[in-house]
Amino acid sequence: MGLQDVDGFLEHLRSAVGAANVLTDESDLAPYVVDARRRYRGGALCVARPATTAQVSQVLTLCHEAGVAVVPQGGNTGMCGGATPRAERDSVVLALGRMNRVRAVDPLNNTIAVDAGCTLAAVQAEAAAVGRLFPMSLGSEGSCQIGGNIATNAGGTAVLRYGPMRDLVLGVEAVMPDGRVVNAMKALRKDNTGYALKHLFVGSEGTLGVITGAVLKLFAKPASDAVAMVGLDDIDAALALLHHVQARAGSRLTNFEVISAGEYELVMSLPKGLRDPLAARHPWVAIVELTDADPAAPLGDELAAIVHGAMERGLVRDATLAASKAQAELIWEIRHSVTEANVNAGLTFSHDTAVPVSRVPDFVRGVERLVAERFPAAKPVFVGHVGDGNIHAVIVLPREAASTPAETDALAAAVNATIDEVALSLDGSISAEHGIGRSNRARLRAYLDPADFALMQGIKSLFDPRGLMNPGVLP
Amino acid sequence: MGLQDVDGFLEHLRSAVGAANVLTDESDLAPYVVDARRRYRGGALCVARPATTAQVSQVLTLCHEAGVAVVPQGGNTGMCGGATPRAERDSVVLALGRMNRVRAVDPLNNTIAVDAGCTLAAVQAEAAAVGRLFPMSLGSEGSCQIGGNIATNAGGTAVLRYGPMRDLVLGVEAVMPDGRVVNAMKALRKDNTGYALKHLFVGSEGTLGVITGAVLKLFAKPASDAVAMVGLDDIDAALALLHHVQARAGSRLTNFEVISAGEYELVMSLPKGLRDPLAARHPWVAIVELTDADPAAPLGDELAAIVHGAMERGLVRDATLAASKAQAELIWEIRHSVTEANVNAGLTFSHDTAVPVSRVPDFVRGVERLVAERFPAAKPVFVGHVGDGNIHAVIVLPREAASTPAETDALAAAVNATIDEVALSLDGSISAEHGIGRSNRARLRAYLDPADFALMQGIKSLFDPRGLMNPGVLP
Repeated sequence: MGLQDVDGFLEHLRSAVGAANVLTDESDLAPYVVDARRRYRGGALCVARPATTAQVSQVLTLCHEAGVAVVPQGGNTGMCGGATPRAERDSVVLALGRMNRVRAVDPLNNTIAVDAGCTLAAVQAEAAAVGRLFPMSLGSEGSCQIGGNIATNAGGTAVLRYGPMRDLVLGVEAVMPDGRVVNAMKALRKDNTGYALKHLFVGSEGTLGVITGAVLKLFAKPASDAVAMVGLDDIDAALALLHHVQARAGSRLTNFEVISAGEYELVMSLPKGLRDPLAARHPWVAIVELTDADPAAPLGDELAAIVHGAMERGLVRDATLAASKAQAELIWEIRHSVTEANVNAGLTFSHDTAVPVSRVPDFVRGVERLVAERFPAAKPVFVGHVGDGNIHAVIVLPREAASTPAETDALAAAVNATIDEVALSLDGSISAEHGIGRSNRARLRAYLDPADFALMQGIKSLFDPRGLMNPGVLP
Repeated sequence: MGLQDVDGFLEHLRSAVGAANVLTDESDLAPYVVDARRRYRGGALCVARPATTAQVSQVLTLCHEAGVAVVPQGGNTGMCGGATPRAERDSVVLALGRMNRVRAVDPLNNTIAVDAGCTLAAVQAEAAAVGRLFPMSLGSEGSCQIGGNIATNAGGTAVLRYGPMRDLVLGVEAVMPDGRVVNAMKALRKDNTGYALKHLFVGSEGTLGVITGAVLKLFAKPASDAVAMVGLDDIDAALALLHHVQARAGSRLTNFEVISAGEYELVMSLPKGLRDPLAARHPWVAIVELTDADPAAPLGDELAAIVHGAMERGLVRDATLAASKAQAELIWEIRHSVTEANVNAGLTFSHDTAVPVSRVPDFVRGVERLVAERFPAAKPVFVGHVGDGNIHAVIVLPREAASTPAETDALAAAVNATIDEVALSLDGSISAEHGIGRSNRARLRAYLDPADFALMQGIKSLFDPRGLMNPGVLP
């Protein structure tokens, strides 16, 4: 576009969403063109902030006509740079934050219909206000938005019991790159009327269109819960304990997280001085939580009996049951401090691997072996959702291991390739819950089967023939 | 194709799957060219019965080269004629029944990998043999096949707790119309690596390719259960009871089925003489089942207390708790005799509507009102999965209401249009769990939003550019 055309284009955008909602000043753009981890910096022609689906449609129609790329952005909390525009200042960042209406709450249908720009925390609060649970739980829940959660098929700690975002979405509304609105805002638990368009938008990372609304499932609100922290000999014991608990507590098992000693040490070394719930350190700890809709359910007794049984079988070295809400919160604070601890630890490369649950011990040992061989200065630590087979291997190196961005990138690529090698040897996935974004696009290409990749390219062309939606991300 | 070409084509098929597995005799073809309800009769060039994915690929490659249509067929138990070839004898029925290997069982990952031609009952049995549950439960489970269950996104009575087939499939293997194999046999609970190709095959009814294998989720095997039959004043009471139970039993609630008095009467009139678990007849009955992984869970006491509480609130008129396995089986036999009862009842038109759970009473009353107005000789009866919002309205007419197939078709279309009118007014779906097949294609076209329909056509063209896969079904 020439300068003249740019001015005309921006004028049209201003008519669509209001002059105050088209940002062009460098300082206004700043928070929108860098990702949460500050690993990607881009540029933008402008940020447009529509307040309604109709406005999103108008913006996309204008961009389509002008051949301008669009980068949808929710809370900008992604882990892979998928909401950061490329360096050229030629795209529109479409920020959904003003679309934050709750459209309908239907407790008898156990559903809530919301705009895509509602934060996850706002949805959790709306559900709680009618005595229901929206179960997704993430570190960034205060600022991440439902549209982004859907576009990245977010995971978190509640997947074991309630599934990832994909399983929690009954309906979506999305705007196609040419401005057409796909209205699939169904509040139905069963619907077999053709191909699953909804599931194409889930996990599409803004590359097929813009999600503007969703109908989400709600659940009976847990009225009882019990949390324990358990010390374990090794990762095999964690797996054995998982099955010991599953066989007894069934779907009352709501969380089962593991932390390796190295990661635990990083967390406990944080200046905030967390108190250790266990009397001694152990090679691994697990956090186990049971919940039940029945307020009278004796979950504390049940969890104590289950853990006691596991001790008798030699699966558990030590355990602490939270005797109060405060103790439970302390246990969870340890888990939720992992990201903060890793930032402080040095030069860290985090991974988001999934393997079959039964192969988690092989994954851990495989990473430990290969990292020791190839990166002797590195220390691998682990944290993860073992019940989902989703283990984050965090490779910690001294800061001096790389002194320029180019060296850091090269080191990251070498470390990534090593972790992926172990994951692939165990039929795993290189991205369990974080997605592809800008970080993992080259790895995705190497990972995908050529037939699958060709189909994904075909789908992209079908939905977005001009290639305007979030270029540089999928496929 | 000329006759010469047909002979050559069949010869190639015989080389691919063995001469004994290419059926061409009229009598051999007969069971494959008529649907389970005997509403559709077609013709076929032949039936091919491959035993491996490689053979499926060879057959599809040959058909692709020759421009021959392919109709994939599992157990041939579908409700909508989706596996019956069209009348012209120009297509190949691809029967998957010889592909019945269990590929791998991984109890520690809670997964089973199977060929698509395994029956549902065989998968249930394999799961039980390692102390796990494969939860899907259908009337036709002895003969329906996993590939068909996936291709139709089957439902059944366990959806309330475990979800439909879509939620139970972790990975699929499928052969594209040109013979390419899409290998997505992942045994992973989390995987965010591009567009959800798997979910396109689920519910695609054989129109995008042939599903040849799947990795399925297993669950902790229920070790305790309790079943009650409950008499209710009206459908509103059923909904109130559902929420009363959900709030107390949470995910222990495994089944919640309702039957209207008219349907119940049809079942109890069957010559097999079922004993009524309740002392008197009621406008509606509900069947409520709780299960738990814990063998010591006091579910009988819990269900009794929950039902007692519901009685005190005036939600329940009468109730019987099954005191033995035999009594529980009797209650379930009543539910499972519905199809048989309807066949005997006269000229019946069954529907497969889903509405938001909160709108089920409106749906029932809407159908009763419109049917009374438009079809005074008809009696609407109801059975369904109220917890899923999935109610089957069965419109029973005297056999003499139509005397020719053309009259029956016209009457069916008028009745369908009436039920769909009510469903659509409540934001419902015209096909909750049965799918589209041949029966509902015209209704689908009327039901779908034009933007959605265009996208589905685009997906069909992308996967099957020559239009050879199961023509006459989706989209």
